Amino acid sequence: MISVVILGAGNVATHLFKAFNKTEKVSVVQWYNRSIDIIKPYKNEIDTIDDLTQLKDADLYILAVSDDAIKSLSSQLPFENRLVVHTSGAAGIYDIDKKHKRGVFYPLQTFSKTAPIDFSNVPICIEALENQDYQVLKKLAKTVGSPTKKVNTDQRKVLHLAAVFVNNFTNQLYRVAHEITESEGAEFDLLKPLILETAKKAQDVSPYMAQTGPAKRNDKKTLKKHLKLLQDQHHKDIYNLLTTSIQRTHGRKKL
Amino acid sequence: MISVVILGAGNVATHLFKAFNKTEKVSVVQWYNRSIDIIKPYKNEIDTIDDLTQLKDADLYILAVSDDAIKSLSSQLPFENRLVVHTSGAAGIYDIDKKHKRGVFYPLQTFSKTAPIDFSNVPICIEALENQDYQVLKKLAKTVGSPTKKVNTDQRKVLHLAAVFVNNFTNQLYRVAHEITESEGAEFDLLKPLILETAKKAQDVSPYMAQTGPAKRNDKKTLKKHLKLLQDQHHKDIYNLLTTSIQRTHGRKKL
Ligand SMILES: NC(=O)c1ccc[n+]([C@@H]2O[C@H](COP(=O)([O-])OP(=O)(O)OC[C@H]3O[C@@H](n4cnc5c(N)ncnc54)[C@H](OP(=O)(O)O)[C@@H]3O)[C@@H](O)[C@H]2O)c1
Ligand SMILES: NC(=O)c1ccc[n+]([C@@H]2O[C@H](COP(=O)([O-])OP(=O)(O)OC[C@H]3O[C@@H](n4cnc5c(N)ncnc54)[C@H](OP(=O)(O)O)[C@@H]3O)[C@@H](O)[C@H]2O)c1
Repeated sequence: MISVVILGAGNVATHLFKAFNKTEKVSVVQWYNRSIDIIKPYKNEIDTIDDLTQLKDADLYILAVSDDAIKSLSSQLPFENRLVVHTSGAAGIYDIDKKHKRGVFYPLQTFSKTAPIDFSNVPICIEALENQDYQVLKKLAKTVGSPTKKVNTDQRKVLHLAAVFVNNFTNQLYRVAHEITESEGAEFDLLKPLILETAKKAQDVSPYMAQTGPAKRNDKKTLKKHLKLLQDQHHKDIYNLLTTSIQRTHGRKKL
Repeated sequence: MISVVILGAGNVATHLFKAFNKTEKVSVVQWYNRSIDIIKPYKNEIDTIDDLTQLKDADLYILAVSDDAIKSLSSQLPFENRLVVHTSGAAGIYDIDKKHKRGVFYPLQTFSKTAPIDFSNVPICIEALENQDYQVLKKLAKTVGSPTKKVNTDQRKVLHLAAVFVNNFTNQLYRVAHEITESEGAEFDLLKPLILETAKKAQDVSPYMAQTGPAKRNDKKTLKKHLKLLQDQHHKDIYNLLTTSIQRTHGRKKL
């Protein structure tokens, strides 16, 4: 049984609370948030607090708060030499005050409060200074069925950056597709099965092997037609840059 | 019962043959390819030919051949006034010789010979000059469980272009993520659940609503850190352009 205190009440904290509270292998001792109103609805399930001096003993303290708040919150904790981790992909492990045993428990997934999360689809990237702490964090991830990976700071930061490419930037490409289809009165919805299939293919086939299309084939006629179809200069820029990118990857230097 | 002749033996033709051959509602009368060797393995299941003069009567003829071959192949067909369609997102309906009744049967999905295809995930975009022909094509799509959509030429072309964004370009973003993670010895595989979740979210939530991350938040500190982490100028260019794109969409004009 691992005992945990959760600090913060945003997207990540809320999903962690729900997942840990469901398994018998974890005891969530307390839930802290600076604004208590947000966690009050849970007060029958869990000891909710907004006062750090009331913090109880636990195996670890999870700071699931904004990156910028990690430093000051960790230094305000009224104890030392206990395991304190944050959940950020970008913040340093040394952002946690040095009076604590420090670690990172970074869930590589996109969280929003409303969408349910299946933690078996949430790889947890773990960083710790001591092997003993790493073992605790690994065991904790396992209680909710998450795969884990030991990473160093550089690897974690680069994974966070890569997540921007495969999540935020990919989503923006969907947005551009939405704009250009709707501008012709075509239905964006028709693209949804293709969107899903593209992501599914990436589960089994490397992006290098999976690539197809006019850029890779260097099909100049189609590339030209597509650029002509695009009315927005900004969409043209994206088309050109990603076409060049594909051609660099596949050994064609220029359009 | 709809009778069909398939011409071509590439990715699309092969999947169409297999799907139509399985349902009792379609009779595949013949399968033509200019190089017969490719379709020979199927000769016990179907009349395989490489000679256009041997073509038999059918309700429609599907030209699932390279875009550039549609024009000449359609004009070589030794009959007239029958329904002839191509499967291209980009070729014009008038690329088909005018001696035929013309149509387009464009499957909006990515096909490769090896990966199995579930046609219920393949929206068929249908274009026809006559309503009667449109009805035949719609009925044909239904036999394999595909949803259909009547489109005009402009809409089909823009869907094909949008497919490049959500398939080829998205896949290239996965590739960039692959490059930057591996360069730090981090595992690209850790991103796979996020890749899938991003595509799944797009099934239910508009890309506009689904957007998150440092670009949308205009989190300048993180944007700067990310650009510093990226070593390849070309990756920086993609980062900058897509960040700007997100900020344009979400009402922030500049980095
Ligand atoms: N969202 C994701 O998809 C995701 C994925 C992986 C990792 N992460 C990381 O997980 C952490 C939390 O992210 P989130 O999305 O859950 O954030 P969020 O929804 O914005 O919630 C932020 C939480 O931090 C608290 N907070 C902010 N400033 C504070 C301060 N100065 N002192 C105390 N508490 C403070 C907020 O308290 P109030 O309620 O009082 O405002 C709120 O509970 C971040 O490090 C983030 O990088 C997020
Ligand atoms: N692949 C996709 O994901 C996809 C998706 C939607 C639509 N489409 C469209 O479907 C059509 C076929 O694409 P595909 O991917 O199946 O192509 P493919 O795998 O490259 O196969 C092309 C076929 O066309 C034949 N062909 C080429 N030139 C010809 C000519 N001059 N005369 C007669 N036959 C010729 C080839 O014959 P040989 O075997 O003798 O070379 C081959 O059977 C294209 O219009 C494409 O735009 C493709």
